[in-house]
Amino acid sequence: MNAHLPLIADIANEQLAQALQHKLDHKTKPLGSLGRLESLALTLGQILGTETPALEQPQMVVFAGDHGLAARGVSAFPSDVTWQMVENFLAGGAAVSVLARQHGLALTVVDCGVARNIAPREAAPGQPRLLLRKVAPGTQDASQGPAMSAAQCAQALNNGAELVRDLPGNALLLGEMGIANTSVASLLLARLCGLSLAECTGAGTGLDAAGIERKRAVLQQALDVNVAATAPLDALAALGGYEVATMVGAVLQAAAERRVILVDGFITSAAVLVASRLQPHVLQRCVFAHRSGERGHQLMLAQMQAEPLLDLGLRLGEGSGAALAWPLLPSACGILREMASFEAAGVSGQTAA
Amino acid sequence: MNAHLPLIADIANEQLAQALQHKLDHKTKPLGSLGRLESLALTLGQILGTETPALEQPQMVVFAGDHGLAARGVSAFPSDVTWQMVENFLAGGAAVSVLARQHGLALTVVDCGVARNIAPREAAPGQPRLLLRKVAPGTQDASQGPAMSAAQCAQALNNGAELVRDLPGNALLLGEMGIANTSVASLLLARLCGLSLAECTGAGTGLDAAGIERKRAVLQQALDVNVAATAPLDALAALGGYEVATMVGAVLQAAAERRVILVDGFITSAAVLVASRLQPHVLQRCVFAHRSGERGHQLMLAQMQAEPLLDLGLRLGEGSGAALAWPLLPSACGILREMASFEAAGVSGQTAA
Repeated sequence: MNAHLPLIADIANEQLAQALQHKLDHKTKPLGSLGRLESLALTLGQILGTETPALEQPQMVVFAGDHGLAARGVSAFPSDVTWQMVENFLAGGAAVSVLARQHGLALTVVDCGVARNIAPREAAPGQPRLLLRKVAPGTQDASQGPAMSAAQCAQALNNGAELVRDLPGNALLLGEMGIANTSVASLLLARLCGLSLAECTGAGTGLDAAGIERKRAVLQQALDVNVAATAPLDALAALGGYEVATMVGAVLQAAAERRVILVDGFITSAAVLVASRLQPHVLQRCVFAHRSGERGHQLMLAQMQAEPLLDLGLRLGEGSGAALAWPLLPSACGILREMASFEAAGVSGQTAA
Repeated sequence: MNAHLPLIADIANEQLAQALQHKLDHKTKPLGSLGRLESLALTLGQILGTETPALEQPQMVVFAGDHGLAARGVSAFPSDVTWQMVENFLAGGAAVSVLARQHGLALTVVDCGVARNIAPREAAPGQPRLLLRKVAPGTQDASQGPAMSAAQCAQALNNGAELVRDLPGNALLLGEMGIANTSVASLLLARLCGLSLAECTGAGTGLDAAGIERKRAVLQQALDVNVAATAPLDALAALGGYEVATMVGAVLQAAAERRVILVDGFITSAAVLVASRLQPHVLQRCVFAHRSGERGHQLMLAQMQAEPLLDLGLRLGEGSGAALAWPLLPSACGILREMASFEAAGVSGQTAA
């Protein structure tokens, strides 16, 4: 099967950008004094195509999957933690559950390829929702061959696009869960950006130096055995995971619909990296929530010329960093929509420089 | 008159700190993976003296005052902007008005010493409230002598303590407005920390390099003419402003009551610097919202060993940075209060390092 990937148009609009900048410059504040919040307001206005952006029904989607690589000891935690955390997300006890509740973010958890079967269930209104979109019960061990087939990868991409099509609102927050998926992100960074694994490989959930060294050696095997997988979709199938591939499909669909995409940490950034290599204009729709404490994330952000909002040493994933950064987005919209201009408020302008 | 300054007790409690750390370490997340949010949770638990901190009825207070120094051209904006912005705060059109509304922060604007008389008014419930606590219509020009008398300074300190005593809730967010008050903050930093004005003086609301040089020369006159004012309260009277002195009183009272104090940028940090030189344990109750784009703020933060939450290049003041950082505080409390432990959620722990 083939994935039907949407085309992502260039939404650059110099006239709108100037109108937004003019509006910001006439608000009752010294020029540029809201710093990064002003550039965020510009971005949101341009994504939503309006001088008065408003975010509606924001959707936090946590993509979950397991990885054959986990059996090689690349993570500090066992694979069972993936399904256990899916249950924890749904029960409301995980960090992302708490933060989504705080900010009124609808929370959807997607089984993209968890090893254990997750029992289907109905969610009460306002409660976290489970979607079963399992392609297979975990990937194959990428250190021995491709993690998934091209058909499986296409299925995951289509699943991601389809589920976003069904979501309300105009903002998608990316989250993920999958023991060993920092390995996947490191592999995709190394392969797609031509960087060494020494630069791309970090502690994940808590490896020590010897553990990182073992992990790096396993990841080198994965790069070596999948040496021909250099094109973005080939690399995604050979080195990726079902949660990452489903997320790539979701990102492409969200970008096609001009939703605001709030990217979390290292793993969700890896999905955006793949999507942006397929369709560069994806990045016009992305806001990067934070700089993770995980080694490699800063390199990945630099590859996408991304300037994240927060720098709090987070390295949890789940979408927790996206949820923590979320309130800054409605703040930026509020500045554009609700602040008075110098003229309207009768405030004197600058007299000297 | 003398200010009646409360004593600020040492609230360090090793047993509580350990209990909080133990609780954080057993939440369903890799050890330490919520980074700065975890240290924030520790701080909030210790301020409020509980393993289950909850923030109640947070109060944003914007302290406003005018400065004799403004007539010397140290600001890019005229003094009239102070009262005009007070009106803008109350009308709901300023950045801090918009952000306080977004986050459900009660907003109080205090005339501590604005040059123009601000008309008293009743606020509808939920609307910004005006308090008239004017000591004098602006300070004297500090480049010619003391900005205020000792009695005026004591009056401002008492006003600040008294108004906090009447506020509900357990969290105080600091904001300020006063054309020329980055000059005041630079002077207090230079005098209390023994730093040069070259290091402490920045662009404020938007001076160019020549403007900064003129400003620095005026500030040097102020330091020279007030050379004997070295003790914290003497420096505050000689070099400070009514909004800063009122804020110092407010900070001391809030600290005495073990309220959480969320500090905004350069000027509010200057008030905390003065308060902490009077009573060092004040800093145990403070959370620093952001690192300002204003030169000098980083130096001031370093003097207080403060690690701010955000670094967004903000340099507006008003409390806007405190309002933007605010949601991180309930997030940190939510982690402690609502996240499941590994045991309760049936999630496997770390297997390897």
